[in-house]
This record gives sequence, structure tokens and C-alpha cells, in this order.
Amino acid sequence: MDTVKVALIGFGTIGTGVAKILFGQRERIARAVGRNVELTRICDKDTQRDRGVKLPPDVLTDDLNAISNDSEISTVVELVGGIEPARSIILSLLKSGKNVVTANKALLATHGSEIFDAARSYNRSVSFEAAVGGAIPVINAISTALQANELRQLQAIVNGTCNFILTQMEEHGTNYATAVAEAQRLGYAEANPAMDVNGTDTVQKLAILAHLGFGVKLNWQDIPRTGIDTVEAIDIVYAKRLGYRIKLLAVAEATPDGIELYVSPTLVKIDTPVANVRDSFNIVRIVGDVAGDIVLQGRGAGELPTASAVVGDMIDTILGRAKITFDILNLWGKERPVTKIKNPAEICGKNYLRFLVEDRPGVLAEIAGILGRHKISIASVLQQQDNESDDSPATLIFMTHISREGDTIAAIDTIDSLACVRGKTVRMRVE
Amino acid sequence: MDTVKVALIGFGTIGTGVAKILFGQRERIARAVGRNVELTRICDKDTQRDRGVKLPPDVLTDDLNAISNDSEISTVVELVGGIEPARSIILSLLKSGKNVVTANKALLATHGSEIFDAARSYNRSVSFEAAVGGAIPVINAISTALQANELRQLQAIVNGTCNFILTQMEEHGTNYATAVAEAQRLGYAEANPAMDVNGTDTVQKLAILAHLGFGVKLNWQDIPRTGIDTVEAIDIVYAKRLGYRIKLLAVAEATPDGIELYVSPTLVKIDTPVANVRDSFNIVRIVGDVAGDIVLQGRGAGELPTASAVVGDMIDTILGRAKITFDILNLWGKERPVTKIKNPAEICGKNYLRFLVEDRPGVLAEIAGILGRHKISIASVLQQQDNESDDSPATLIFMTHISREGDTIAAIDTIDSLACVRGKTVRMRVE
Repeated sequence: MDTVKVALIGFGTIGTGVAKILFGQRERIARAVGRNVELTRICDKDTQRDRGVKLPPDVLTDDLNAISNDSEISTVVELVGGIEPARSIILSLLKSGKNVVTANKALLATHGSEIFDAARSYNRSVSFEAAVGGAIPVINAISTALQANELRQLQAIVNGTCNFILTQMEEHGTNYATAVAEAQRLGYAEANPAMDVNGTDTVQKLAILAHLGFGVKLNWQDIPRTGIDTVEAIDIVYAKRLGYRIKLLAVAEATPDGIELYVSPTLVKIDTPVANVRDSFNIVRIVGDVAGDIVLQGRGAGELPTASAVVGDMIDTILGRAKITFDILNLWGKERPVTKIKNPAEICGKNYLRFLVEDRPGVLAEIAGILGRHKISIASVLQQQDNESDDSPATLIFMTHISREGDTIAAIDTIDSLACVRGKTVRMRVE
Repeated sequence: MDTVKVALIGFGTIGTGVAKILFGQRERIARAVGRNVELTRICDKDTQRDRGVKLPPDVLTDDLNAISNDSEISTVVELVGGIEPARSIILSLLKSGKNVVTANKALLATHGSEIFDAARSYNRSVSFEAAVGGAIPVINAISTALQANELRQLQAIVNGTCNFILTQMEEHGTNYATAVAEAQRLGYAEANPAMDVNGTDTVQKLAILAHLGFGVKLNWQDIPRTGIDTVEAIDIVYAKRLGYRIKLLAVAEATPDGIELYVSPTLVKIDTPVANVRDSFNIVRIVGDVAGDIVLQGRGAGELPTASAVVGDMIDTILGRAKITFDILNLWGKERPVTKIKNPAEICGKNYLRFLVEDRPGVLAEIAGILGRHKISIASVLQQQDNESDDSPATLIFMTHISREGDTIAAIDTIDSLACVRGKTVRMRVE
């Protein structure tokens, strides 16, 4: 049996999972590609730390050239993460004739055009199943099996850290800070969880899915984004009372005015598949015009689940399927027809609004009046005072009927500037 | 732009969906394959009936040779269904050099070996995403993206008719016969729904999934099978009281003694994804040793959803990906390593048992005694009399602890032969 040589750059959590599969399951992988697959090089700055995988001698190196200059290595996995040096590494790998497999959503969302153009100019492929949804084969499904469809809608929970925090808050009645601390203690959140909880990670994944599935081309920074860092225990309680759970959703939806895109904590009806995704699991719900509703769920992170996607891409690359898919999709290609994006201010929907206000007569009327002047009609109101003392602030929660995003933002801006309002309004979408 | 010619055999519901997509979405399909796709021939015995699709002249024919003899047609979709003449048609298409796309689970489950060997001998491919789970890309996921995994478990609802009937019974409290009639009225069940409700359709799909995902090779007739035709309203009610829903599950599970396989109405815990699949939707839950839990759900039947899978396979075939996958998987190939199947009598699990018995002293003790002598211990019992009159029979429901299948069957046989027992025992598995 022939042997094909592959390499890995970035020997962290996922890299360790990839090495475990490739060294531990040689026979299985050989059967899957019809050749022996030899992981000949792993490159990482840190060549000392024990990752719990026994490596043959000379595999671990800190010299990138050991990979770039080895013409027998055809496929390289990039798991460095972040923008630089990952960007330069991938461009240089493509230039030296390697096919690339990556899990790097930040890089693809930011420099997809450059990376994919480079791959095309060197006649190589880039695969990225592991960049979105961990083990869930969502990139593959959209890229291949669902190609007869025009996508109408996509709703996704693609950040396991946020979903774990929200699940903790719901199940244990804890507040946001306590849930974050618990997520950190259990290894679900990093020491600095900002990129997860502020929605950046989710919005980058949405940018990739929206390009792949809906043909939109945009800076991920331009997608309206709200994180979960403003969600509090009272929100979870009130949502539950109304029959909802709060989930950080990435949404893309085709409308006559273009594709609606946003990331926001969202009240989703209990008993829907999306609401029932717990802990660090991920879900992607896709509505195709011919397939109808398709739901894919699974582990969105973790050493082995993400490595499953990486090794799947590696198998696809060695077999030559990845190149066929890469060529025909022409992702981020100049000739690819670009779909219109809907002006975010024109997106319409229901909202959940929470205000912290002075507890005195006239405040509720003032806020309701501002909402009314912005054509936002109110479906229900809850007023709650945390503390019986006279000067403690009161919490006001409004559920609105459908309104324009632009009107909602303008109304919130006006309300937030009122003297009787303490802090910033918390806003979530309602499905 | 080049043109590639394709043909369709069998112009029923799904065939109509395929024609609608290929004629109605020419641009989309051309973009997906980089060539114009021309559906040049549709072959069906009935060339008169109006299917609501406007066809160019000369497309519809009742002459198979118009397809076999046209060397420009490279890919043919078989949607005739059933064993013959579908089997002969596919073998003759392969012989004349066509790649085949089929939705025919009965044929693949019965003659997979012959069909796939023929395709290999003529260096062609057979694709069959639409044979299992309609629009759900489950065949694709197992065949490609999840190839780094050894599958540990698979649980599936793959018959929309049965799931619709069970959902009706649960939601409206109707009995089995009424629910079947409603399913027929709405077009979810055929005039003769035997193949669906007796589990044949599900077991054939399980045979395909088990071969693809677990490497087992067997006659589908050898898989233990119970249909939903014995489920009654009382079962639904009692299951619900215990926190379960009843679903017709296809199960494959890797154990140290081989792969466990069965199809049975099963009590599944409410709040699991499988329990929450309603109406005619399908679900496949896969546990891979590295990916962990993966759940795929969507529309398992219907004109356009199934056509989505067929056209997806057609795109895969034209692009050449299908051939790569077909060759490497070597499905039903002689050299493919065969996984051991667990002796069905040795499968262990909890059961739900319902008996209709004479309402007289000693009957419960007699049945419980027989269960005990077969090493089946009882977790709970419910006795209910439908009618207050003295000689009306009573219903006895037992939930058992884990027991061997062989013991369970032997106990039921003994109990069914008792004079005090009316009719056959209803048995379902409990997850």
C-alpha cells in the first residue's frame, strides 16, 4: 500500500486530537483513503510540553521549513488559530504546493478572499469543516448534499461556551458572572472569554456560513452583533415564564430585500430543537427551498470532536474530493455572484427590552411613549423592584410586537439618555 | 458552457420533484456542476398523466432503450422502486455505462451486493442518499465527513408514515386504526400501509445504514423487527405517564459481542431529540468514537425533499465526487471486512409488555411467575380494566428491568399460550 505524508502546524488541544487519531487509528484511516497516512511532522513553538501522545522521533519540530520544504508532504493542517502568523503560514504553505485543512474561523472570516484566491492561483484546496460547529458536518452538507437548494434560512448556535453559560444560568438560577466562573472552572471558557461572550466568535462563523450558503460577501464586523454578556438571571426567568429559552443565535434569512444577518441573544420557544440544545452542544438549522427544514447538531468543540472534522477534511483532501468541491464552489471568488445584504436598520422583528429605571411615577409612561413615537407597539410589560427600599431602581421588561431594527435602536438610544434610566438597555430578539 | 445529459426512470412523486428542480432551476444546477444539466429523457409506463411539470417535446417516453442506447446520457436516476423491474433496469443501465442514482432502499437492502459488484465491474458508481431519510444528508455524512470515526451507535426514525401515526395517536388520543385512516386521508400513508407499519421499510433502511456505518452484511429479513401495528392508545398514555414517547426506532449498536440490530416501537424519554421528532419528520442520531453525538433531522419523505437528495447525488455524480466515494467505500464488496452481528437472542434491554388477560385471581401472579422463571425482573406493573362488567378482560402492563432478548421471547411465548391470556402480548423496547 502507498503512503501519503501529511503534517500539522499547531500542537494544542485540537492538534493533539488529530495526532491521537492519526497515530492511534492508522488502519481505519488507511482504509478510508486507500493509502497509509503518515503524520511526518508536527510544528509548534513548544516542543517540550507533554501532550499525552507518544510521537515517533523527529516528528515534533519548531521549524516550519521542515514542512514547507518537504515536497512529499501534500496536505497540511493549520491549527495555530488567530490572524497572524496563521495567515502568513497558510499563504506560504499554498505557495509551496500544499493543500490546507484549517479550523481557523477568524482567519477565513477576515481574509477568506486572500486565502482562497491564493489557493486557486496555486491550484490547491482549502478545507474548513472544523471552523464551524466542531464535529457537525455542516460545511460538508451545504457544500455538497444540499447543493440542489437555495437556502431560505439558517439559525445556529455555534458557540459552545455561550450555550454552556446560558444553560448553567437556566438550570441553576445563577447570574451571569457565576455561570462564567463555572464555565472557566470546567474548562469551557478561557481565562479571557471576551471573544466568545461578546459574540465575535459567533459572528465570524456566521460570516463563513452566510458566504457559503447564501453567497453574501461582507466584513464580519458589519454584521449586527450582541453578545450574552448583558444577559442576567431575571432575563432567563422572565423568558421561561413566557415559554422561551435564551440562546445566542446566529441568523441568516433570505428576504425580498436581501439577506438578513445578525447575532443576538434570542428568546426561542421551548420545545423547538434549537431551544433544546444544552451545554456546549451546537446546532445548525437550515431551511432549503426544496429540502425544507434540516437540523444538524452535535459537539461544537473539544479535542476529539473537532479533530473528527479535521481528519474528515484530510481524508477528503487526499481522496481528491475536497479539490473538486473547492473548485466548483469558487468561495470568495471574484466571479462568484454576490447576494445583496439587507440593510440592518430595515430588519424587522419582535424584541425583549429590559430597562433599569428610577422607581417614580411617570417613568413607565415616558418609556412607553418613546417606544410609541418610534412605532414600536408593546405586547406585554413586567415591572419588578429588586429591593423594597424607596430609592432602589426598578426593572422594567417590555415584549414588543414586530418593529424595524432602525426604530428599535433609535428608541433605545433615546431611552438610554433619559435621566430616569440607569445603565444601558438590554435588548434581545424574540423568535 | 458544456452540457451534460441525464435521464430519469420512474415519473411518480419523487420523479416529478426531480423534473421540477432540473427544469425550474437550470441556472442553479449549472452553477453547482459548472455545466448545463439537461434532463433529456424521462421514462415511465404512463406517458399520459399530467404531473404538473411542463416538459419539452420528446422527453417523456415509455422506451427504456431511448436511455440505454443514448451514449451521451452519463447519469440516470432510478425511481421505479421495488425489486423488479428496478433491479434489471439498474443492471442494464450500469452495463451500458451509466452512473446510477437511486432512492430504492428495498432493492439495495436485498440486492446491494449484486448491484454494487456490477457497478464496480463496469467502473461506474451508484449513489443512494435518497434511499434513507429523504432530504437528510445522512448517507453523505457517514460516507465522507464522519470517516475518521468508528460508529458506536445509531438510532433512527426513518419512516415518516409511522411517525405521523404515532404523533396523531399521542396528540389527539386516537387509537391506531383512526390514526392510520387519518394518515391515509392526508396522503401520508398508502392505501395498503403494511410495509410501513409492519417495520419492513424501516428494517431495509437500517440494513443499508448498518452496512455503510458498521460494516455488517446481512439479509434485512434477519434483523429482529416489530412494527407499530400493535400499538394502542393505552400504550401511548401509559408511556407518557412514565415520561416516555413511543417511536419506531431502528437501532444499531456496537458491543463487544458484535453489532446489535433491531427495529421496534420503543419508549424514548421525553425531552430527547429523538422523542421530539414529530409528524412525518425523520431523525438519525449517530455516535462516533471521536465525533461523539451527531443528530441529523429533516423531512424524510415528500416530492421535493426527496428530490433534493436525488439531485444532490446527481451533482455529486457529475462532478466525480460520487465515483471517488463509491470506489473507496467498496460497499457490499467481497474484500470489505465484515463485522460480526450479535446474536439477537443475546441482546439485552428493558421492555414494556402489555397483556390482555381474564380478570380473575391468580392471573397476575401466574404471569409474574413466568417472567421470574425467565430471569426477567419487574420494575412496575399497571392493571386496568376497560369495562366494569365482570367478564371483560383486564389489561396488564409490565415494565421490566434489563433482560436477555431470548429470555423475553421465551417468556412471552409461554405467557401467550396460557388459557387466561387473550390475544398476543404487545412488547416494546424501553430506552
